[in-house]
Amino acid sequence: MPYTPSNYLPYDFANRRHIGPSPEEMVEMLDVLGLRTLEGLIDECVPKGIRQAEPLDFGKPKSEREMLWFMRQVAKRNEAYSTLIGQGYYGTVTPPAIVRNILENPAWYTAYTPYQPEISQGRLEALLNYQTMVSDLTGLEIANASLLDEATACAEAMTMAQRVAKTKAGAVFVDRDCHPQNIAVVRTRAAPLGIQVIVGDPFEDLEPEKVFAAIFQYPGTHGHIRDFTGPIAALHEARALGIVVADPMALVVLKEPGAMGADIAVGSTQRFGVPMGYGGPHAAYMACRDAYKRAMPGRIVGVSVDSHGHKAYRLSLQTREQHIRREKATSNVCTAQALLAVIASFYAVFHGPKGLRAIAQRIHRKTVRTARGLEEAGFKVEPAQFFDSFTVDVGPMQGVIYNAALAARINLRKIGATRLGIALDETTRPATIEALWQAFGIEKEDTGGDGQYRFPEGTVRTSDYLTHPVFHMNRAETEMMRYMRRLADRDLALDRAMIPLGSCTMKLNAAVEMMPITWPEFANIHPLAPADQVQGYAEMLADLSAKLCEITGYDAMSMQPNSGAQGEYAGLLTIAAYHKARGHGHRNICLIPTSAHGTNPASAHMAGMKVVVVKAADNGDIDLDDFRAKAEAAGANLAACMITYPSTHGVFEETVAEVCEITHAQGGQVYLDGANLNALVGLAKPGEIGADVSHLNLHKTFCIPHGGGGPGMGPIGVKAHLAPYLPADPMAGEGGAVSGAAYGSASILPISWAYILLMGGAGLTQATKVAILNANYIARRLEGAYDVLFKGQRGRVAHECIIDTRPFAESAGITVDDIAKRLVDCGFHAPTMSWPVAGTLMIEPTESETKAELDRFISAMLGIRDEIRAIEEGRMDRDNNPLKNAPHTVEDLVAEWDRPYSREEGCFPAGAFRVDKYWPPVGRVDNAFGDRHLVCTCPPVEAQAEAAE
Amino acid sequence: MPYTPSNYLPYDFANRRHIGPSPEEMVEMLDVLGLRTLEGLIDECVPKGIRQAEPLDFGKPKSEREMLWFMRQVAKRNEAYSTLIGQGYYGTVTPPAIVRNILENPAWYTAYTPYQPEISQGRLEALLNYQTMVSDLTGLEIANASLLDEATACAEAMTMAQRVAKTKAGAVFVDRDCHPQNIAVVRTRAAPLGIQVIVGDPFEDLEPEKVFAAIFQYPGTHGHIRDFTGPIAALHEARALGIVVADPMALVVLKEPGAMGADIAVGSTQRFGVPMGYGGPHAAYMACRDAYKRAMPGRIVGVSVDSHGHKAYRLSLQTREQHIRREKATSNVCTAQALLAVIASFYAVFHGPKGLRAIAQRIHRKTVRTARGLEEAGFKVEPAQFFDSFTVDVGPMQGVIYNAALAARINLRKIGATRLGIALDETTRPATIEALWQAFGIEKEDTGGDGQYRFPEGTVRTSDYLTHPVFHMNRAETEMMRYMRRLADRDLALDRAMIPLGSCTMKLNAAVEMMPITWPEFANIHPLAPADQVQGYAEMLADLSAKLCEITGYDAMSMQPNSGAQGEYAGLLTIAAYHKARGHGHRNICLIPTSAHGTNPASAHMAGMKVVVVKAADNGDIDLDDFRAKAEAAGANLAACMITYPSTHGVFEETVAEVCEITHAQGGQVYLDGANLNALVGLAKPGEIGADVSHLNLHKTFCIPHGGGGPGMGPIGVKAHLAPYLPADPMAGEGGAVSGAAYGSASILPISWAYILLMGGAGLTQATKVAILNANYIARRLEGAYDVLFKGQRGRVAHECIIDTRPFAESAGITVDDIAKRLVDCGFHAPTMSWPVAGTLMIEPTESETKAELDRFISAMLGIRDEIRAIEEGRMDRDNNPLKNAPHTVEDLVAEWDRPYSREEGCFPAGAFRVDKYWPPVGRVDNAFGDRHLVCTCPPVEAQAEAAE
Repeated sequence: MPYTPSNYLPYDFANRRHIGPSPEEMVEMLDVLGLRTLEGLIDECVPKGIRQAEPLDFGKPKSEREMLWFMRQVAKRNEAYSTLIGQGYYGTVTPPAIVRNILENPAWYTAYTPYQPEISQGRLEALLNYQTMVSDLTGLEIANASLLDEATACAEAMTMAQRVAKTKAGAVFVDRDCHPQNIAVVRTRAAPLGIQVIVGDPFEDLEPEKVFAAIFQYPGTHGHIRDFTGPIAALHEARALGIVVADPMALVVLKEPGAMGADIAVGSTQRFGVPMGYGGPHAAYMACRDAYKRAMPGRIVGVSVDSHGHKAYRLSLQTREQHIRREKATSNVCTAQALLAVIASFYAVFHGPKGLRAIAQRIHRKTVRTARGLEEAGFKVEPAQFFDSFTVDVGPMQGVIYNAALAARINLRKIGATRLGIALDETTRPATIEALWQAFGIEKEDTGGDGQYRFPEGTVRTSDYLTHPVFHMNRAETEMMRYMRRLADRDLALDRAMIPLGSCTMKLNAAVEMMPITWPEFANIHPLAPADQVQGYAEMLADLSAKLCEITGYDAMSMQPNSGAQGEYAGLLTIAAYHKARGHGHRNICLIPTSAHGTNPASAHMAGMKVVVVKAADNGDIDLDDFRAKAEAAGANLAACMITYPSTHGVFEETVAEVCEITHAQGGQVYLDGANLNALVGLAKPGEIGADVSHLNLHKTFCIPHGGGGPGMGPIGVKAHLAPYLPADPMAGEGGAVSGAAYGSASILPISWAYILLMGGAGLTQATKVAILNANYIARRLEGAYDVLFKGQRGRVAHECIIDTRPFAESAGITVDDIAKRLVDCGFHAPTMSWPVAGTLMIEPTESETKAELDRFISAMLGIRDEIRAIEEGRMDRDNNPLKNAPHTVEDLVAEWDRPYSREEGCFPAGAFRVDKYWPPVGRVDNAFGDRHLVCTCPPVEAQAEAAE
Repeated sequence: MPYTPSNYLPYDFANRRHIGPSPEEMVEMLDVLGLRTLEGLIDECVPKGIRQAEPLDFGKPKSEREMLWFMRQVAKRNEAYSTLIGQGYYGTVTPPAIVRNILENPAWYTAYTPYQPEISQGRLEALLNYQTMVSDLTGLEIANASLLDEATACAEAMTMAQRVAKTKAGAVFVDRDCHPQNIAVVRTRAAPLGIQVIVGDPFEDLEPEKVFAAIFQYPGTHGHIRDFTGPIAALHEARALGIVVADPMALVVLKEPGAMGADIAVGSTQRFGVPMGYGGPHAAYMACRDAYKRAMPGRIVGVSVDSHGHKAYRLSLQTREQHIRREKATSNVCTAQALLAVIASFYAVFHGPKGLRAIAQRIHRKTVRTARGLEEAGFKVEPAQFFDSFTVDVGPMQGVIYNAALAARINLRKIGATRLGIALDETTRPATIEALWQAFGIEKEDTGGDGQYRFPEGTVRTSDYLTHPVFHMNRAETEMMRYMRRLADRDLALDRAMIPLGSCTMKLNAAVEMMPITWPEFANIHPLAPADQVQGYAEMLADLSAKLCEITGYDAMSMQPNSGAQGEYAGLLTIAAYHKARGHGHRNICLIPTSAHGTNPASAHMAGMKVVVVKAADNGDIDLDDFRAKAEAAGANLAACMITYPSTHGVFEETVAEVCEITHAQGGQVYLDGANLNALVGLAKPGEIGADVSHLNLHKTFCIPHGGGGPGMGPIGVKAHLAPYLPADPMAGEGGAVSGAAYGSASILPISWAYILLMGGAGLTQATKVAILNANYIARRLEGAYDVLFKGQRGRVAHECIIDTRPFAESAGITVDDIAKRLVDCGFHAPTMSWPVAGTLMIEPTESETKAELDRFISAMLGIRDEIRAIEEGRMDRDNNPLKNAPHTVEDLVAEWDRPYSREEGCFPAGAFRVDKYWPPVGRVDNAFGDRHLVCTCPPVEAQAEAAE
């Protein structure tokens, strides 16, 4: 039922909290569009033929209070046992000040990826701290600002190694002591790329000349600590690379990969304060030798200077989706786990090197005591030397001991038929050790005490780390809290202003949606916890999947892909597996329109497909003739097409059904990119339009916050015929898995579930309609001042619009960059720049922005147009004007002012708040300087002082 | 064990998180003091004779994780039943966005009382919204910014009425339908002041000429809605006042007190989004007719202008402790429930008038349905017309039905031997109504539906309310979140800088300490919940009391006083009751030194005592001769003395034991004000020094955050002989109670308990020592530039120090106010100004500030001294200088700059952050203008626009 002013419902989340414009505002906005009803607008935008027949109906939506109550009942069906499983996931203590001031603080979690460095200095600093931490711990020169998880990081390291290794060998060697999920994901990634995977013992089975790289786990999945210096030297002889997958907590006390000669190190920073969360999200790290830095996937934060010559951070060597080498890519990484990397970095800042060492030593000593207790009772512990993990061969007693431990609320790892794996962590208590002994039949008290170290000779770390002053701050909470606040204040996030990024759907991340994820019942669960301990998760996964299927018209859903690009890749793998199973393994051509996200061709290539690009018609739509021609040319080799709907040009193309038919006619499958699903929910279903598979960006359409650049979540929905080919369980260690954990970033799924429960079917549909209304309102109001590039047949856009700023380059010497930076002065994050069309801005307001905020943005954009006009008409200088000098900072105000416009004009353009103005902490950042002088770890304090001079 | 750099413990909360200076920093600081050990400093500061013999020992302190785990177990022993008890406490839904962005956000909860308006504009606006809401709902012109609870607000209204009523009548009439706790607290307050309390039926028993005021409850405690227009008119005839205690939720739909002619209205805003919390804290409101505004107790936010002529908020007609008319006071109110008032105001902003009306109507309709169900089954509901409450006479079935309801997890109210009271609220669900019916033997489905209203004729509200635009904002969460952020950003709180307020102990409020209070098991408990539902609370109260007794050397503790001043008052009442019980009822003289907190004499007067002021010696200490002389003069009439230790001059006086002995020698009791307990914990115990009773400011020493001006908590500890005379249970309706709820603000006690559990005895003691170190470090570093006024025998101060700024008035024309405002430019909240000595600054850094922050403050103060010197030496203008023009705002920067110093000098004095500078949103606020043009509700938007011109 549409909400009207007369039927006010105080607990109506959809219409009173989530959706921005009030009913009265909507009437005014529709009036601007010359329309009387929202439904009328939708009729003009969305082709009749694709509209879904029945409205979405999930029953009565829950109020916020009901949802929390319901979610608590669900949470109680998860049981957080003491978990000694290990295998890459460990209990950890997130300092409560970090929980409150970062994880639960919208200033951090609603931020976007730091592409606009001037308004992102806070999280860029936190991420630079992260890189410094990783670089120090691994002993390698360069680190990136996180990858999705350890398993995908292994796969990324493999393809990166293949790119840079100076050998023609086509195989990769994988240590059989790698965690099974790492082996699984490497296998998956290797197969379509034709890479042979050799699994074996590095000291017995490695034949360096046969491989371009070898991947070693350190410590091994069963606890072995081995020095890979020898094998790596041998690899180097053969011009192959050594990759070490290392636990950063172990690196605090153990010899670092760099000291072994490793070329690349990867791993998970989960146990640096990020809860296990049933598998994710966590930040994986990657570090490498300086020589390989330009081949490294993911984002790298670097240091540059701003327009005043002051130090300023930025993303270096940008490899975001637009910059990925489309058809030739071996990586489609375009997101990171920024929020989790920030948490891990603060964990290190909180504890400092001394604290980390104390924590690692405590873990080790507890493990030694545990082992000794078992040994004294006659059990044989293997390996005899370890960091935090070992195994015990208990013969036929495996099940008995395992169950006895379970009865004491302890989870162990079963290995083979006779072994048990035991891994300790920061949270293991003496009582747990005693209960564990009891499960082994040992009555004994854990008296603590120092114990002796049990590290193999020569593996104890001797080098320093975390020497930068940031890791030696006074770690009183007062100081830490203020540091977190200062960094947060430097950034502009959704909690202060609209972030109208096209295709990124920066909608409200409601406080209530964020509440369940920090409850211990969701946070402290190991991904291998037995099924009866995760009934709550199971219920959520089932219901959320069902609802997402209902929304999308698909029959099955996989939650495994932990980013949108991962979803694309997983979807294409599913298609490929389907073809193969039907004896059509030869189908390898993928049609992709020119306007596609850059990740599309990259994902296709990674899935072993050959990309054929389809032209765009003059109006930006897919050129149907070209599409048909290329589909027919591909014929029996057509594997798939990848389309986005509504298109990346922000238009509901009328021909989408035809595109699907053409593809199917040739035996191909349709991949519909879900990036723009926010324009479809409740109106049309990809699965009904004709698509066979889609990924859903839960961090766009379904309210998972962007976290300053991750986490994301990209589950895929498929029609029934593809269901058998969805991603496999990674823990099995076989191919077919795309992430390290079966359900990807499971612990953030409650956010999307809560959103759907709160909105109900009608609310979700209304949100879609208002998203379209907001976009059309902006497009109409900006018309005249700017050209709106693409429209549908009736002159409407979808949920976003592209405005053309190219003419100003010539008319006024103004670039899209100048406009973006000027928007900072107005208190806005810029829209998406130069994508999908260079020199344009793509604006997506989402349904969550109110008319007042839209109007503020419009007035900023119109003010900017006036400034451009002043330049065009010679009333303003072409080089020294508010656009070229943007953003303006307090430093500008304090300094001598010798500009041909006033301070007032410079700092308070249309749209800017007066009292509550956002001041960027730096002036315009010099990108070229940063790439020329690449610095990707915290600069020494002296350098900061110099830069400031 | 003192912490040293060599024994780093990563989970050591006391030394790594709570205490600011690191061991290395302490060494440097001690060096400045010419000392080698912290213990050496303590020996020089604290008289040997009073040191406690045994160290505090509470066993092993808990880590943050252990504390949370432990607290969760305790919380689980509370059971949050559906509570239909009413009696002034109701279930309510706090919008989650308010929980996250205000209650759990240090920017709000760590703020101080807004005495410095330039850095408090955010919470002043929120409190002005609160006043506007109260004024609108009650229909009275002026409202204050909250009182402690409804019961004390009744007592305040009574004494205020006595002050302004133009009658000599000495009695107050109290509606027998008032909640029992309101009657109880009025009785308590009335007795020592010689006011006779007449309880009766307003329409039968009220004899207007006998009273100066009458207090009516609306609706009555049993649900009756009566129009008091008649009785109030009769009171006015007799020059007496009408006071209405009104439920604000009822006022949304019922005729407002102003329309009945009421002079004063009070009540609780608890059900506007503030959880019941086992009794508190909640914000009580008070509103009155314009004529009485200058007699109103508590804080009133008003509108004034700043140095640019822009609108600016401030506290009007300040009645804080320093300004209370000491010996003649009838109120000692000096705090409020700011944080709770802010939450209640945002609840109204979130819902707006339409939403509030919908909520109130829903509550009423549910109540009508519930009553109808009972009536249809033959039960007689009384009254027949009501808002949300009624009673049912069930004869001998009372216990059976009560227990049947209990079995369905529903709490009812027992009234007399045969009645049950039922009160519904925002959270009552249909399932609860059905279960309630079942308890009455009725099988019936609650089918919802509109139902009819059951209001007595003529009591339906007809006037508008919440007409100001702030209550008509777009209430999308996006907009609300940004509004909360904008207000927060205008303020300077502990999360950005030190707040070195003397005697206010603005120490760290750690994130982990704040976590339990929002758990439903602590938040959603009615103060009358049966004992077996509050086992967790009972455990906490017992253990916290025991630990506080151990710390203070007392034998018993009462948690009832919900502010420091309430504690003083309760302590003196206890002493008076003790004297009376021993037949010494004549003892009525209370000795108080000149340097005492202003609340001391006010509390003494309220307790029926006569204040005799004791002189100070030249060194600021109590003049012992004068003390002895006055004690002896009082002789058998000596009731008590009130001292503060260490003294309000920031010194450990050597004579404290002697002062106690002199008092006891005359049969008097020693009240030791606990305001400075942060300098004693672990070093000395008031109960061992010789004191008989103290209040403890849990919001100072024990980490309850100041919340921008409340909540506070002032439990009292007493020696065994006083224990029988501690405050009584208010719910009994008899005198002897000081707050509405037995345990005061019970729901924030977990904060203090957590603090003690985390710190352990050694940690608490170390905190005390470091607090003293920090103060001495500041005193020493500022010496030379400023005179430190008072010191102990060995030249040391205690935990705070007073610096003398009086000479600068003559030498440079600079006042203490100029320095305070200049500190804003440096990014600091000013120290306490002009108290206890006019023209001075009292600095208390607390143990939580690091050396770096102390040094930043010191450099700010030294920089200010340099500026003063420049004026003294004629290098700077006497009238146009950075001190007189402070604070500097962005408006100053943008405007023409015609000052004899640079923008740089103006805006970036020593101590100011460069990139992260705090900019006050307004220039210096004009206090006189604000008091001349008193505006205490939100100004119309046009007025804002004008002011901005």
